[in-house]
Amino acid sequence: MLNLRKNIKDMAGYVPGFQPEGEGWTKLNSNENPYPPSPKVVEAIIAELVDGGGNLRKYPDAGSKKSRKIAADLYGYDPSWVIMANGSDELLNNLIRAFAGEEDEIGYVNPSYSYYGPLAEIQGAKIRTFGLTEDHRIADFPEIYEGKIFFLTSPNAPLGCCFSNAYIEELAPRCKGILVVDEAYVDFAAENAMELVHKYENLVVTRTFSKSYSLAGMRIGLAVARPEIVAALDKIRDHYHLDRLALVAAEAALLDQDYLRMTLKKVCDTREWFSAELRKLGFQVDPSGANYIFAIPEDRNAKRIYEGLYAEKILVRYFSDPLLQHGVRISIGTHEEMALTLKAISAIG
Amino acid sequence: MLNLRKNIKDMAGYVPGFQPEGEGWTKLNSNENPYPPSPKVVEAIIAELVDGGGNLRKYPDAGSKKSRKIAADLYGYDPSWVIMANGSDELLNNLIRAFAGEEDEIGYVNPSYSYYGPLAEIQGAKIRTFGLTEDHRIADFPEIYEGKIFFLTSPNAPLGCCFSNAYIEELAPRCKGILVVDEAYVDFAAENAMELVHKYENLVVTRTFSKSYSLAGMRIGLAVARPEIVAALDKIRDHYHLDRLALVAAEAALLDQDYLRMTLKKVCDTREWFSAELRKLGFQVDPSGANYIFAIPEDRNAKRIYEGLYAEKILVRYFSDPLLQHGVRISIGTHEEMALTLKAISAIG
Repeated sequence: MLNLRKNIKDMAGYVPGFQPEGEGWTKLNSNENPYPPSPKVVEAIIAELVDGGGNLRKYPDAGSKKSRKIAADLYGYDPSWVIMANGSDELLNNLIRAFAGEEDEIGYVNPSYSYYGPLAEIQGAKIRTFGLTEDHRIADFPEIYEGKIFFLTSPNAPLGCCFSNAYIEELAPRCKGILVVDEAYVDFAAENAMELVHKYENLVVTRTFSKSYSLAGMRIGLAVARPEIVAALDKIRDHYHLDRLALVAAEAALLDQDYLRMTLKKVCDTREWFSAELRKLGFQVDPSGANYIFAIPEDRNAKRIYEGLYAEKILVRYFSDPLLQHGVRISIGTHEEMALTLKAISAIG
Repeated sequence: MLNLRKNIKDMAGYVPGFQPEGEGWTKLNSNENPYPPSPKVVEAIIAELVDGGGNLRKYPDAGSKKSRKIAADLYGYDPSWVIMANGSDELLNNLIRAFAGEEDEIGYVNPSYSYYGPLAEIQGAKIRTFGLTEDHRIADFPEIYEGKIFFLTSPNAPLGCCFSNAYIEELAPRCKGILVVDEAYVDFAAENAMELVHKYENLVVTRTFSKSYSLAGMRIGLAVARPEIVAALDKIRDHYHLDRLALVAAEAALLDQDYLRMTLKKVCDTREWFSAELRKLGFQVDPSGANYIFAIPEDRNAKRIYEGLYAEKILVRYFSDPLLQHGVRISIGTHEEMALTLKAISAIG
């Protein structure tokens, strides 16, 4: 008899987005960046493979000192305020382990990133979710939220709406525990909360390299927080969590901000054009600060759109959740991919 | 006021082995393999970087299906019995999360891998350690061990002694929880417990690619266990824990068993020769099944050996722990490195 912990036995587990088999798909379901990473990332990886890959036999820098320094300089913090991670998922996981024990509560907005729930279940922590109001504020957020952590995905996934810094400044003092602003998509937005970490002791900002830096395949994330929080996360993480190639990729990506700006502009331009075209077709498309949009057809029958596109080998994201089933989330690909998608949507009618 | 969990606040955190700055060091302190990984590993990584690194923008296979299949075929299991991981450290961590909650007990041998303790502390689990007898059995192991997990490092770190399959077959039925045989170094040994997983429901075998496959820099490990245990670990792990380059590296390394055998033979031959030479110098060197030896000088003043070698820029591992301070752990490098070390040890006298 295997005696798994009850919370592990009972939980369903997170199901990552569907990846189609075979060729010819236009993949707009995982919010991947349509452009390759900076050429300097590939150069850095190749350079690390010098001498027949001899470096790979040696452990990486357990403290990822170089990339922390680069990120710290970029964001205007001391390196003791920065931690790198194996995707921002690792940070979300370890923040729960740092602050919320079994039976402790964590909170988040529903809908938002669907991984917070499973992460809390793994820990045996309790979950409390909050809805969103029409004007994109958290519904019924208490005067003081007593939970150990509140996760705020900004821009929201999958809606794309952003929470302003003014609003985050309202929330931070109302959180008795920590407020984690999960900025996975924020590089595509006009504003971000990074500077607020100086000001609010309980504020943590997390980022991923998967979207804006086109490095979903390399699993890199980072967080900015007080040194006490970084030190706690450093205790919890596997000491060698980032491999050598991920480390040099992170460093090169952070250093090439020109390339980042160039691809961001392309994606954002395409997003604005595509959103406007969809609106002409009668869709409701609220402004998005991310590399996806949430598109609501006039008849609110989003499944029909999903299935029509699927038949054309265009994959977008449909959520059966009653809160979301009236729209589809469409990642922003290249202009050509979006033109193709638009044509297919027109044909669906 | 930051409200970290008490166990996190109180714990010291794991300190990885010292990595010297500057050039000219002979590094025999981290049990890294002196030989580069298989050339096929480097080829596979380069191939994955095709089209200007365009693949890196896409998520990796969350299920690492290809490498699980290769490992399963290699070890004679169905793929549902295999899980890949970001180093075997991730597996040790997630096994605790699967089976031991706050206040539950886990056990291990002291001395052995010094990371089990911090991993238990992160979880808030209790720790019970057991000594070793002169003939390398666990001292005072109860008729039935009631803890949730028992970790057995075989070969033992840092002593190098192996626990026979016969002994593991004795232990498995005496563990009420699971028995994890941590075979980080087992490729350098004559026997391993992999086949026993078929036989004992509560047995888990973990492996790392850091030592025998020369891939410490790539963070890859695997475990073989019943499908129920693999499924639990699959729920707990970050869904995209392995990046694309680590995945292709794992696949290529597993497929090149000829290269593995060749480097293993070189390391083991060097180990036997070096051990014999040290014995001639009066050291006690027990047989090792790993890529290191534990060498005890006649005067049992191991710190003197460590410091003498350090002065010659040869780095070995000295443990201040009273159980271990009579010896030094020396990783097996190339024949040339070990000849240099031997010469330096002779000079220390």
